Amino acid sequence: MAAVRTIRIEENVLADNDASAAAVRSMLTAAGTTMINFMSSPGSGKTTLLTALIPALKDEMRIRVMDVDIESALDAQRVADATGVEALQIHNGGLCHIDADMVARALAQYPQAVTDTDLLILENIGNLVCPAEFDTGAHKNVMILSVPEGDDKPLKYPLMFSVCDLVLINKIDTLAYFDFNIEAAKQRIRRLNPGAEILCVSAKTGEGLDAVCDWVRKACSEQMKVRI
Amino acid sequence: MAAVRTIRIEENVLADNDASAAAVRSMLTAAGTTMINFMSSPGSGKTTLLTALIPALKDEMRIRVMDVDIESALDAQRVADATGVEALQIHNGGLCHIDADMVARALAQYPQAVTDTDLLILENIGNLVCPAEFDTGAHKNVMILSVPEGDDKPLKYPLMFSVCDLVLINKIDTLAYFDFNIEAAKQRIRRLNPGAEILCVSAKTGEGLDAVCDWVRKACSEQMKVRI
Repeated sequence: MAAVRTIRIEENVLADNDASAAAVRSMLTAAGTTMINFMSSPGSGKTTLLTALIPALKDEMRIRVMDVDIESALDAQRVADATGVEALQIHNGGLCHIDADMVARALAQYPQAVTDTDLLILENIGNLVCPAEFDTGAHKNVMILSVPEGDDKPLKYPLMFSVCDLVLINKIDTLAYFDFNIEAAKQRIRRLNPGAEILCVSAKTGEGLDAVCDWVRKACSEQMKVRI
Repeated sequence: MAAVRTIRIEENVLADNDASAAAVRSMLTAAGTTMINFMSSPGSGKTTLLTALIPALKDEMRIRVMDVDIESALDAQRVADATGVEALQIHNGGLCHIDADMVARALAQYPQAVTDTDLLILENIGNLVCPAEFDTGAHKNVMILSVPEGDDKPLKYPLMFSVCDLVLINKIDTLAYFDFNIEAAKQRIRRLNPGAEILCVSAKTGEGLDAVCDWVRKACSEQMKVRI
Protein backbone atom coordinates (compact mmCIF):
# COMPACT_ATOMS: atom_id res chain seq x y z
CA MET A 1 0.00 0.00 0.00
CA ALA A 2 2.79 2.44 0.82
CA ALA A 3 4.34 1.74 -2.59
CA VAL A 4 1.15 2.67 -4.44
CA ARG A 5 0.91 5.88 -2.45
CA THR A 6 4.49 6.75 -3.36
CA ILE A 7 3.83 6.23 -7.06
CA ARG A 8 0.79 8.53 -7.07
CA ILE A 9 2.75 11.27 -5.37
CA GLU A 10 5.51 10.86 -7.89
CA GLU A 11 3.11 11.31 -10.80
CA ASN A 12 1.98 14.69 -9.47
CA VAL A 13 5.56 15.71 -8.85
CA LEU A 14 6.50 14.67 -12.39
CA ALA A 15 3.65 16.65 -13.99
CA ASP A 16 4.67 19.78 -12.05
CA ASN A 17 8.25 19.13 -13.03
CA ASP A 18 7.47 18.94 -16.75
CA ALA A 19 5.92 22.42 -16.62
CA SER A 20 8.92 23.84 -14.75
CA ALA A 21 11.32 22.16 -17.17
CA ALA A 22 9.57 23.69 -20.17
CA ALA A 23 9.85 27.13 -18.53
CA VAL A 24 13.56 26.70 -17.80
CA ARG A 25 14.20 25.52 -21.36
CA SER A 26 12.30 28.47 -22.90
CA MET A 27 14.24 30.95 -20.79
CA LEU A 28 17.58 29.42 -21.78
CA THR A 29 16.60 29.22 -25.45
CA ALA A 30 15.58 32.90 -25.43
CA ALA A 31 18.94 33.80 -23.91
CA GLY A 32 20.85 31.76 -26.50
CA THR A 33 22.18 29.34 -23.89
CA THR A 34 22.33 25.61 -24.62
CA MET A 35 22.04 23.40 -21.57
CA ILE A 36 23.33 19.82 -21.63
CA ASN A 37 22.60 17.42 -18.77
CA PHE A 38 25.23 14.73 -18.09
CA MET A 39 23.98 11.64 -16.24
CA SER A 40 25.57 8.33 -15.22
CA SER A 41 26.29 5.88 -12.39
CA PRO A 42 28.61 7.03 -9.62
CA GLY A 43 32.22 6.78 -10.78
CA SER A 44 31.60 6.35 -14.50
CA GLY A 45 33.75 9.36 -15.33
CA LYS A 46 31.45 12.39 -15.67
CA THR A 47 33.85 14.79 -13.98
CA THR A 48 36.94 13.45 -15.76
CA LEU A 49 35.11 13.72 -19.07
CA LEU A 50 34.19 17.34 -18.39
CA THR A 51 37.76 18.23 -17.43
CA ALA A 52 38.86 16.86 -20.82
CA LEU A 53 35.96 18.23 -22.88
CA ILE A 54 35.81 21.81 -21.61
CA PRO A 55 39.41 22.84 -22.43
CA ALA A 56 38.85 21.66 -26.02
CA LEU A 57 35.77 23.90 -26.38
CA LYS A 58 36.24 26.88 -24.11
CA ASP A 59 38.02 29.09 -26.65
CA GLU A 60 35.04 28.95 -29.00
CA MET A 61 32.15 29.26 -26.52
CA ARG A 62 31.46 30.63 -23.03
CA ILE A 63 31.00 27.59 -20.77
CA ARG A 64 29.70 27.30 -17.22
CA VAL A 65 29.12 24.17 -15.14
CA MET A 66 26.57 23.33 -12.46
CA ASP A 67 27.54 20.30 -10.40
CA VAL A 68 24.93 18.47 -8.35
CA ASP A 69 25.94 16.37 -5.37
CA ILE A 70 24.46 15.30 -2.06
CA GLU A 71 27.56 16.51 -0.25
CA SER A 72 31.06 17.91 -0.91
CA ALA A 73 32.14 20.40 -3.55
CA LEU A 74 34.78 18.06 -4.92
CA ASP A 75 33.47 17.83 -8.46
CA ALA A 76 32.82 21.54 -8.99
CA GLN A 77 36.29 22.30 -7.62
CA ARG A 78 37.91 19.66 -9.84
CA VAL A 79 36.19 21.06 -12.94
CA ALA A 80 37.02 24.67 -12.08
CA ASP A 81 40.67 23.87 -11.25
CA ALA A 82 41.22 21.76 -14.36
CA THR A 83 39.45 23.95 -16.89
CA GLY A 84 39.44 27.52 -15.58
CA VAL A 85 35.69 27.88 -16.18
CA GLU A 86 33.26 28.82 -13.43
CA ALA A 87 31.55 25.91 -11.73
CA LEU A 88 28.66 26.12 -9.28
CA GLN A 89 28.17 23.34 -6.74
CA ILE A 90 24.52 22.57 -5.98
CA HIS A 91 23.73 20.50 -2.89
CA ASN A 92 20.40 18.86 -3.47
CA GLY A 93 19.47 18.18 0.15
CA GLY A 94 20.12 14.45 0.05
CA LEU A 95 17.72 13.76 -2.79
CA CYS A 96 18.51 11.26 -5.49
CA HIS A 97 18.08 13.61 -8.46
CA ILE A 98 17.83 17.28 -9.45
CA ASP A 99 14.51 18.53 -10.78
CA ALA A 100 13.64 21.54 -12.91
CA ASP A 101 12.58 23.68 -9.92
CA MET A 102 15.97 23.16 -8.32
CA VAL A 103 17.62 24.20 -11.61
CA ALA A 104 15.35 27.27 -11.79
CA ARG A 105 16.28 28.28 -8.25
CA ALA A 106 19.99 27.74 -8.92
CA LEU A 107 19.77 29.88 -12.07
CA ALA A 108 17.96 32.65 -10.17
CA GLN A 109 20.96 32.82 -7.81
CA TYR A 110 23.46 32.50 -10.66
CA PRO A 111 22.07 34.64 -13.50
CA GLN A 112 25.39 34.69 -15.41
CA ALA A 113 24.68 31.05 -16.26
CA VAL A 114 21.76 32.33 -18.35
CA THR A 115 22.86 35.77 -19.55
CA ASP A 116 26.54 35.26 -20.17
CA THR A 117 26.88 31.60 -21.19
CA ASP A 118 26.73 29.74 -24.50
CA LEU A 119 26.99 26.23 -23.08
CA LEU A 120 25.65 25.42 -19.62
CA ILE A 121 26.68 21.96 -18.47
CA LEU A 122 24.70 20.24 -15.72
CA GLU A 123 26.60 17.42 -14.04
CA ASN A 124 23.76 15.45 -12.48
CA ILE A 125 24.04 13.25 -9.41
CA GLY A 126 25.52 9.77 -9.98
CA ASN A 127 22.43 7.57 -10.29
CA LEU A 128 20.97 5.55 -13.20
CA VAL A 129 17.40 5.59 -11.91
CA CYS A 130 15.89 8.81 -10.55
CA PRO A 131 17.60 11.48 -12.70
CA ALA A 132 16.08 9.83 -15.79
CA GLU A 133 12.59 10.60 -14.47
CA PHE A 134 13.09 14.33 -14.00
CA ASP A 135 13.39 16.61 -17.01
CA THR A 136 15.86 19.26 -15.81
CA GLY A 137 15.06 21.77 -18.54
CA ALA A 138 18.21 20.82 -20.48
CA HIS A 139 18.12 20.88 -24.28
CA LYS A 140 20.06 17.64 -24.52
CA ASN A 141 20.67 14.66 -22.26
CA VAL A 142 23.93 12.73 -22.31
CA MET A 143 24.48 9.52 -20.38
CA ILE A 144 27.81 7.90 -19.73
CA LEU A 145 28.15 4.12 -19.46
CA SER A 146 31.61 3.05 -18.40
CA VAL A 147 33.18 -0.24 -19.48
CA PRO A 148 33.69 -1.59 -15.91
CA GLU A 149 29.92 -1.34 -15.28
CA GLY A 150 29.12 -3.99 -17.89
CA ASP A 151 27.28 -4.13 -21.22
CA ASP A 152 24.02 -5.34 -19.60
CA LYS A 153 23.13 -1.95 -18.09
CA PRO A 154 20.67 -0.92 -20.88
CA LEU A 155 18.63 -4.04 -20.02
CA LYS A 156 18.52 -3.13 -16.35
CA TYR A 157 18.06 0.66 -16.44
CA PRO A 158 16.00 1.12 -19.62
CA LEU A 159 14.50 4.53 -18.82
CA MET A 160 17.92 6.19 -18.52
CA PHE A 161 18.95 4.87 -21.92
CA SER A 162 15.59 5.93 -23.42
CA VAL A 163 15.74 9.60 -22.39
CA CYS A 164 19.24 10.41 -23.63
CA ASP A 165 20.30 11.96 -26.93
CA LEU A 166 23.87 10.71 -26.68
CA VAL A 167 25.36 7.67 -24.95
CA LEU A 168 29.08 7.80 -24.28
CA ILE A 169 30.73 4.44 -23.69
CA ASN A 170 33.60 5.61 -21.48
CA LYS A 171 36.83 4.05 -20.15
CA ILE A 172 37.41 2.16 -23.41
CA ASP A 173 41.11 2.13 -22.46
CA THR A 174 40.14 -0.62 -19.97
CA LEU A 175 38.34 -2.89 -22.46
CA ALA A 176 41.06 -5.55 -22.17
CA TYR A 177 40.37 -6.01 -18.46
CA PHE A 178 36.58 -6.35 -18.48
CA ASP A 179 34.04 -8.55 -20.26
CA PHE A 180 32.32 -5.75 -22.15
CA ASN A 181 30.97 -6.32 -25.65
CA ILE A 182 30.62 -2.94 -27.38
CA GLU A 183 28.40 -4.29 -30.17
CA ALA A 184 26.05 -5.94 -27.67
CA ALA A 185 25.83 -2.71 -25.68
CA LYS A 186 25.10 -0.70 -28.84
CA GLN A 187 22.36 -3.10 -29.95
CA ARG A 188 20.72 -2.96 -26.53
CA ILE A 189 20.82 0.85 -26.52
CA ARG A 190 19.45 1.08 -30.09
CA ARG A 191 16.59 -1.25 -29.25
CA LEU A 192 15.49 1.14 -26.48
CA ASN A 193 16.36 4.37 -28.26
CA PRO A 194 16.98 4.19 -32.02
CA GLY A 195 17.60 7.95 -32.24
CA ALA A 196 20.39 8.12 -29.68
CA GLU A 197 23.90 8.68 -30.92
CA ILE A 198 26.53 6.37 -29.40
CA LEU A 199 30.20 7.31 -29.15
CA CYS A 200 33.11 5.41 -27.58
CA VAL A 201 35.61 7.45 -25.56
CA SER A 202 38.31 7.39 -22.99
CA ALA A 203 38.17 10.57 -20.94
CA LYS A 204 41.53 9.51 -19.48
CA THR A 205 43.51 9.03 -22.72
CA GLY A 206 41.48 11.46 -24.86
CA GLU A 207 40.52 8.79 -27.42
CA GLY A 208 37.23 9.66 -29.14
CA LEU A 209 36.92 13.12 -27.55
CA ASP A 210 36.98 14.96 -30.90
CA ALA A 211 33.69 13.34 -31.89
CA VAL A 212 32.16 14.36 -28.55
CA CYS A 213 33.28 17.97 -29.14
CA ASP A 214 31.67 17.89 -32.59
CA TRP A 215 28.44 16.57 -31.10
CA VAL A 216 28.41 19.40 -28.51
CA ARG A 217 29.13 22.02 -31.21
CA LYS A 218 26.24 20.67 -33.30
CA ALA A 219 23.88 20.69 -30.29
CA CYS A 220 24.76 24.34 -29.60
CA SER A 221 24.36 25.44 -33.23
CA GLU A 222 20.99 23.63 -33.52
CA GLN A 223 19.89 25.54 -30.45
CA MET A 224 20.94 28.86 -31.97
CA LYS A 225 18.88 28.02 -35.09
CA VAL A 226 15.79 27.35 -32.97
CA ARG A 227 16.29 30.75 -31.38
CA ILE A 228 16.48 32.56 -34.75
CA MET B 1 8.54 24.63 -3.21
CA ALA B 2 8.11 21.27 -4.96
CA ALA B 3 11.36 20.09 -3.38
CA VAL B 4 10.17 20.89 0.15
CA ARG B 5 6.92 19.06 -0.52
CA THR B 6 8.84 16.02 -1.73
CA ILE B 7 10.95 15.97 1.41
CA ARG B 8 7.93 16.07 3.71
CA ILE B 9 6.31 13.19 1.88
CA GLU B 10 9.49 11.24 2.12
CA GLU B 11 9.63 11.68 5.90
CA ASN B 12 6.20 10.11 6.28
CA VAL B 13 7.13 7.30 3.95
CA LEU B 14 10.33 6.69 5.90
CA ALA B 15 8.54 6.57 9.27
CA ASP B 16 6.04 4.01 7.89
CA ASN B 17 8.93 2.09 6.41
CA ASP B 18 10.82 1.85 9.70
CA ALA B 19 7.80 0.19 11.33
CA SER B 20 7.46 -2.28 8.45
CA ALA B 21 11.17 -3.03 8.52
CA ALA B 22 11.06 -3.82 12.24
CA ALA B 23 8.16 -6.22 11.61
CA VAL B 24 9.99 -7.99 8.76
CA ARG B 25 13.13 -8.30 10.88
CA SER B 26 11.23 -9.73 13.88
CA MET B 27 9.53 -12.31 11.67
CA LEU B 28 12.83 -13.42 10.14
CA THR B 29 14.56 -13.52 13.53
CA ALA B 30 11.78 -15.67 14.96
CA ALA B 31 12.14 -18.05 12.01
CA GLY B 32 15.92 -18.27 12.44
CA THR B 33 16.57 -16.65 9.07
CA THR B 34 19.36 -14.07 8.68
CA MET B 35 18.74 -11.51 5.96
CA ILE B 36 21.64 -9.60 4.42
CA ASN B 37 21.03 -6.66 2.06
CA PHE B 38 23.68 -6.06 -0.64
CA MET B 39 23.80 -2.53 -2.07
CA SER B 40 26.07 -0.75 -4.58
CA SER B 41 26.27 1.33 -7.74
CA PRO B 42 25.21 -0.32 -10.99
CA GLY B 43 27.96 -2.58 -12.27
CA SER B 44 30.06 -2.74 -9.11
CA GLY B 45 29.86 -6.51 -9.02
CA LYS B 46 27.00 -7.50 -6.69
CA THR B 47 25.84 -10.41 -8.87
CA THR B 48 29.35 -11.66 -9.61
CA LEU B 49 30.15 -11.53 -5.89
CA LEU B 50 27.06 -13.56 -5.04
CA THR B 51 27.86 -16.18 -7.67
CA ALA B 52 31.29 -16.59 -6.00
CA LEU B 53 30.11 -16.36 -2.38
CA ILE B 54 27.11 -18.69 -2.45
CA PRO B 55 28.89 -21.85 -3.70
CA ALA B 56 31.40 -21.43 -0.86
CA LEU B 57 28.61 -21.34 1.75
CA LYS B 58 25.72 -23.37 0.42
CA ASP B 59 26.83 -26.73 1.87
CA GLU B 60 26.71 -25.35 5.41
CA MET B 61 23.50 -23.26 5.25
CA ARG B 62 20.26 -23.05 3.27
CA ILE B 63 20.54 -19.95 1.08
CA ARG B 64 17.94 -18.12 -1.00
CA VAL B 65 18.31 -14.92 -2.99
CA MET B 66 15.87 -12.10 -3.79
CA ASP B 67 17.03 -9.92 -6.66
CA VAL B 68 15.54 -6.47 -7.15
CA ASP B 69 15.60 -4.80 -10.55
CA ILE B 70 13.52 -2.33 -12.50
CA GLU B 71 13.38 -4.70 -15.44
CA SER B 72 14.78 -8.05 -16.66
CA ALA B 73 15.40 -11.20 -14.65
CA LEU B 74 19.05 -11.36 -15.68
CA ASP B 75 20.56 -11.20 -12.23
CA ALA B 76 18.26 -13.74 -10.57
CA GLN B 77 18.85 -16.12 -13.49
CA ARG B 78 22.62 -15.62 -13.32
CA VAL B 79 22.68 -16.34 -9.58
CA ALA B 80 20.41 -19.38 -9.91
CA ASP B 81 22.37 -20.81 -12.86
CA ALA B 82 25.77 -20.26 -11.28
CA THR B 83 24.98 -21.42 -7.76
CA GLY B 84 22.05 -23.83 -7.94
CA VAL B 85 20.18 -21.96 -5.20
CA GLU B 86 16.69 -20.56 -5.67
CA ALA B 87 16.55 -16.92 -6.67
CA LEU B 88 13.43 -14.75 -6.83
CA GLN B 89 13.37 -11.76 -9.16
CA ILE B 90 11.44 -8.78 -7.80
CA HIS B 91 10.47 -6.02 -10.22
CA ASN B 92 10.00 -2.87 -8.20
CA GLY B 93 7.80 -0.96 -10.61
CA GLY B 94 10.48 1.45 -11.80
CA LEU B 95 11.27 2.77 -8.34
CA CYS B 96 14.80 3.56 -7.29
CA HIS B 97 14.86 1.36 -4.20
CA ILE B 98 13.09 -1.49 -2.41
CA ASP B 99 11.35 -0.75 0.86
CA ALA B 100 10.29 -2.99 3.72
CA ASP B 101 6.67 -3.27 2.52
CA MET B 102 7.87 -4.58 -0.84
CA VAL B 103 10.05 -7.12 1.00
CA ALA B 104 7.08 -8.13 3.18
CA ARG B 105 4.88 -8.64 0.12
CA ALA B 106 7.59 -10.64 -1.66
CA LEU B 107 8.03 -12.87 1.43
CA ALA B 108 4.26 -13.43 1.64
CA GLN B 109 4.40 -14.84 -1.90
CA TYR B 110 7.58 -16.76 -1.24
CA PRO B 111 7.21 -18.20 2.28
CA GLN B 112 10.07 -20.70 1.84
CA ALA B 113 12.40 -17.69 2.08
CA VAL B 114 11.29 -17.40 5.71
CA THR B 115 10.48 -20.95 6.79
CA ASP B 116 13.14 -22.94 4.98
CA THR B 117 16.13 -20.59 4.73
CA ASP B 118 19.12 -19.86 6.97
CA LEU B 119 20.56 -17.02 4.90
CA LEU B 120 18.30 -14.79 2.81
CA ILE B 121 20.28 -12.52 0.50
CA LEU B 122 18.66 -9.38 -0.88
CA GLU B 123 20.41 -8.00 -3.96
CA ASN B 124 19.17 -4.41 -3.97
CA ILE B 125 18.85 -2.21 -7.02
CA GLY B 126 22.09 -0.60 -8.25
CA ASN B 127 21.94 2.87 -6.71
CA LEU B 128 24.09 4.61 -4.08
CA VAL B 129 21.40 7.06 -2.98
CA CYS B 130 17.85 5.85 -2.40
CA PRO B 131 18.40 2.29 -1.12
CA ALA B 132 20.40 3.76 1.79
CA GLU B 133 17.28 5.60 3.00
CA PHE B 134 15.01 2.57 3.20
CA ASP B 135 15.55 -0.04 5.90
CA THR B 136 14.58 -3.28 4.14
CA GLY B 137 14.21 -5.32 7.31
CA ALA B 138 17.62 -6.96 6.76
CA HIS B 139 19.75 -7.83 9.77
CA LYS B 140 22.92 -6.62 8.07
CA ASN B 141 23.72 -4.20 5.25
CA VAL B 142 26.67 -4.73 2.93
CA MET B 143 27.78 -2.18 0.37
CA ILE B 144 30.16 -2.83 -2.47
CA LEU B 145 32.47 -0.10 -3.75
CA SER B 146 34.36 -1.15 -6.86
CA VAL B 147 37.83 0.16 -7.69
CA PRO B 148 36.84 1.70 -11.09
CA GLU B 149 34.29 3.95 -9.31
CA GLY B 150 37.00 5.83 -7.43
CA ASP B 151 38.05 6.30 -3.80
CA ASP B 152 36.08 9.56 -3.42
CA LYS B 153 32.67 7.88 -3.28
CA PRO B 154 32.35 7.95 0.55
CA LEU B 155 32.64 11.76 0.37
CA LYS B 156 29.87 11.97 -2.20
CA TYR B 157 27.39 9.35 -1.00
CA PRO B 158 27.88 9.52 2.78
CA LEU B 159 24.54 8.03 3.84
CA MET B 160 25.19 4.76 1.99
CA PHE B 161 28.54 4.36 3.72
CA SER B 162 26.97 5.25 7.08
CA VAL B 163 24.23 2.60 7.07
CA CYS B 164 26.34 -0.43 6.17
CA ASP B 165 27.89 -3.00 8.48
CA LEU B 166 30.42 -4.18 5.90
CA VAL B 167 32.05 -2.37 2.97
CA LEU B 168 33.57 -4.58 0.30
CA ILE B 169 36.15 -2.88 -1.90
CA ASN B 170 35.69 -5.02 -5.02
CA LYS B 171 37.57 -5.49 -8.32
CA ILE B 172 40.95 -5.16 -6.57
CA ASP B 173 42.38 -7.15 -9.50
CA THR B 174 42.08 -3.90 -11.51
CA LEU B 175 43.96 -1.66 -9.02
CA ALA B 176 46.85 -1.23 -11.48
CA TYR B 177 44.57 0.42 -14.07
CA PHE B 178 42.78 2.96 -11.89
CA ASP B 179 43.80 5.76 -9.54
CA PHE B 180 42.29 4.24 -6.41
CA ASN B 181 43.95 4.69 -3.03
CA ILE B 182 42.73 1.93 -0.69
CA GLU B 183 44.00 3.66 2.46
CA ALA B 184 42.28 6.93 1.51
CA ALA B 185 39.03 5.06 0.84
CA LYS B 186 39.27 3.24 4.19
CA GLN B 187 39.91 6.48 6.09
CA ARG B 188 36.92 8.16 4.44
CA ILE B 189 34.67 5.20 5.26
CA ARG B 190 35.90 5.02 8.89
CA ARG B 191 35.28 8.74 9.40
CA LEU B 192 31.63 8.23 8.43
CA ASN B 193 31.16 4.84 10.04
CA PRO B 194 33.81 3.75 12.56
CA GLY B 195 31.99 0.47 13.25
CA ALA B 196 31.89 -0.78 9.67
CA GLU B 197 34.16 -3.63 8.71
CA ILE B 198 36.08 -3.12 5.44
CA LEU B 199 37.33 -6.01 3.31
CA CYS B 200 39.12 -5.97 -0.05
CA VAL B 201 38.04 -8.57 -2.59
CA SER B 202 38.00 -9.56 -6.21
CA ALA B 203 34.80 -11.42 -6.97
CA LYS B 204 36.38 -12.34 -10.32
CA THR B 205 39.63 -13.92 -9.08
CA GLY B 206 38.33 -15.01 -5.67
CA GLU B 207 40.93 -12.99 -3.73
CA GLY B 208 39.67 -12.05 -0.28
CA LEU B 209 36.48 -14.12 -0.50
CA ASP B 210 37.34 -16.36 2.49
CA ALA B 211 37.14 -13.33 4.79
CA VAL B 212 33.75 -12.40 3.35
CA CYS B 213 32.51 -15.95 3.98
CA ASP B 214 33.71 -15.72 7.58
CA TRP B 215 31.90 -12.41 8.01
CA VAL B 216 28.66 -13.94 6.69
CA ARG B 217 29.04 -16.99 8.98
CA LYS B 218 29.53 -14.68 11.97
CA ALA B 219 26.49 -12.58 11.01
CA CYS B 220 24.34 -15.73 10.82
CA SER B 221 25.59 -17.15 14.12
CA GLU B 222 25.04 -13.80 15.91
CA GLN B 223 21.50 -13.86 14.63
CA MET B 224 20.96 -17.37 15.97
CA LYS B 225 22.17 -16.22 19.40
CA VAL B 226 19.68 -13.34 19.40
CA ARG B 227 16.95 -15.86 18.66
CA ILE B 228 17.95 -18.10 21.59
